[in-house]
Amino acid sequence: MSLVIVGSLALDTIETPAARRERVVGGSGTYCALAASFFTRPKVVGVVGTDFPEETLRFLRRRRIDLEGLEIRPGRTFFWEGRYGQDPNLRTTLQTKLNVFQDFRPQLPDSYRRADIIFLANIDPDLQGDILRQAVKPRLVAMDTIQYWIETKPQSLRRVLGQVDIFFCNDQEAKMLTGEVNLVRASKKILDRGPRWVVVKKGEHGVLILGRHLAFGLPAKPTEHVVDPTGAGDSFAGGFLGTLDRAGRTTPRLLCQAAAYGSVMASLAIEDFGIERFKTLTTAQVNGRFRLFQKLVSF
Amino acid sequence: MSLVIVGSLALDTIETPAARRERVVGGSGTYCALAASFFTRPKVVGVVGTDFPEETLRFLRRRRIDLEGLEIRPGRTFFWEGRYGQDPNLRTTLQTKLNVFQDFRPQLPDSYRRADIIFLANIDPDLQGDILRQAVKPRLVAMDTIQYWIETKPQSLRRVLGQVDIFFCNDQEAKMLTGEVNLVRASKKILDRGPRWVVVKKGEHGVLILGRHLAFGLPAKPTEHVVDPTGAGDSFAGGFLGTLDRAGRTTPRLLCQAAAYGSVMASLAIEDFGIERFKTLTTAQVNGRFRLFQKLVSF
Repeated sequence: MSLVIVGSLALDTIETPAARRERVVGGSGTYCALAASFFTRPKVVGVVGTDFPEETLRFLRRRRIDLEGLEIRPGRTFFWEGRYGQDPNLRTTLQTKLNVFQDFRPQLPDSYRRADIIFLANIDPDLQGDILRQAVKPRLVAMDTIQYWIETKPQSLRRVLGQVDIFFCNDQEAKMLTGEVNLVRASKKILDRGPRWVVVKKGEHGVLILGRHLAFGLPAKPTEHVVDPTGAGDSFAGGFLGTLDRAGRTTPRLLCQAAAYGSVMASLAIEDFGIERFKTLTTAQVNGRFRLFQKLVSF
Repeated sequence: MSLVIVGSLALDTIETPAARRERVVGGSGTYCALAASFFTRPKVVGVVGTDFPEETLRFLRRRRIDLEGLEIRPGRTFFWEGRYGQDPNLRTTLQTKLNVFQDFRPQLPDSYRRADIIFLANIDPDLQGDILRQAVKPRLVAMDTIQYWIETKPQSLRRVLGQVDIFFCNDQEAKMLTGEVNLVRASKKILDRGPRWVVVKKGEHGVLILGRHLAFGLPAKPTEHVVDPTGAGDSFAGGFLGTLDRAGRTTPRLLCQAAAYGSVMASLAIEDFGIERFKTLTTAQVNGRFRLFQKLVSF
């Protein structure tokens, strides 16, 4: 069992209606790896600058995350600044500075090439494609993307889409990618382009998995106070793929369970700023939250 | 066991992106009673004009719906005209003509007064209050409302809210009623005003029940083609309350099951225009759809 996660490690400045935090650790790869670390020993591919906190690297290693594929380069770490309004599903990007990510060409170390599962977080689809060319027969490939790549690199995105098993997106992205207003029709169009399953992350409305012979839905945990929604989707992917890696196979039943663990990790991540919640999180708490989800939907 | 439904019986002209139907039978009371009739023998309170199809009255009776509380008055039946866009969750009201509903003062026939469950569909909150004064110790009272009453009769609405056990609403209504943008905080404020449970109907995003010691969620059935969304919420209420009436009691577990049967009836109602789908619907189909919902959320 092995899960390779290719994504960003970042410093984020985050503003919510309640507070502002400057240069906290974030990034799709960071959130995903931390969430996955409760289920398996993920391997990370990414790049940080010399300003990335040494303390965080120690924390990632303590969570038994393999950092062989992480480059530390002279310069500054990828930086993102965003603001959330009253609706945590909506955010405004105020600033993005690629910094050391600018000319990053991800390389799979030899020990990563035969990974069972590869997750391509929301980076440039051309880089996603590069990674797949370096991998040797992964059992499962999953990808995520963002509106920016749908708009600026539709051809590259389409090529990668044809090579993955699982496509993570939110409902707007699914509709934008296909021009369909109905989510089921949009998902079917995406399935026609290659993936076996589309996993639609709907924030406060939960998650929906659609495959050719599978439909599964789960509401989100009703939450009164979202501290920081950043990283919810990546934490979801981490819990999801970590579960599938631990299981060693992919059945419809396991996909549904993976979605539940993904929802668990997302619901936990948003309870504090940045990756803070993961610092005190225990496996017992993860399992407790899983039981809460079981109760939430059992009838 | 007995369920009294107080609501409108209407003629609707409906326009969707795919088609237009003129003066088809609709109304909150009609949808709710038909959906409930698969679980119990509902009693209807309402009014129609002489233009209301005799054939529909025969159909309602054939479904063993008690029409003793239905007045037939000289004049025209309540009329509504609406248009749906590509997003079936959004609709525009083009015309409303109260007609015989204008000076309707609902009366509970003697045989209705000791009903176990009373459902006050989305009519004028003053009329909802009138009904409650005529009822003798109902086991359970549920109400629905619409944006129009929240805006025009907030005081009356608040009085009724203090007397009901279950409040049905959609997420916009919950937020508008309380001034809270977060659905959980909005629901808590509603619970503070009287109801024991708030049932939030979220259309394509499913349903959420929140009580002081209960949180339950269910996604909607993923649907490629919604023929006519009219009556989905009322059919939900009918399936929900029909289930509780059949059970004869209200436990947390039964509330969750009721929400599943409500979702089943809503998902069926939208498969055809107006009440058409109910004309061919069988109990076996209802139970089949229930199993589909079980599968949709089991992990």
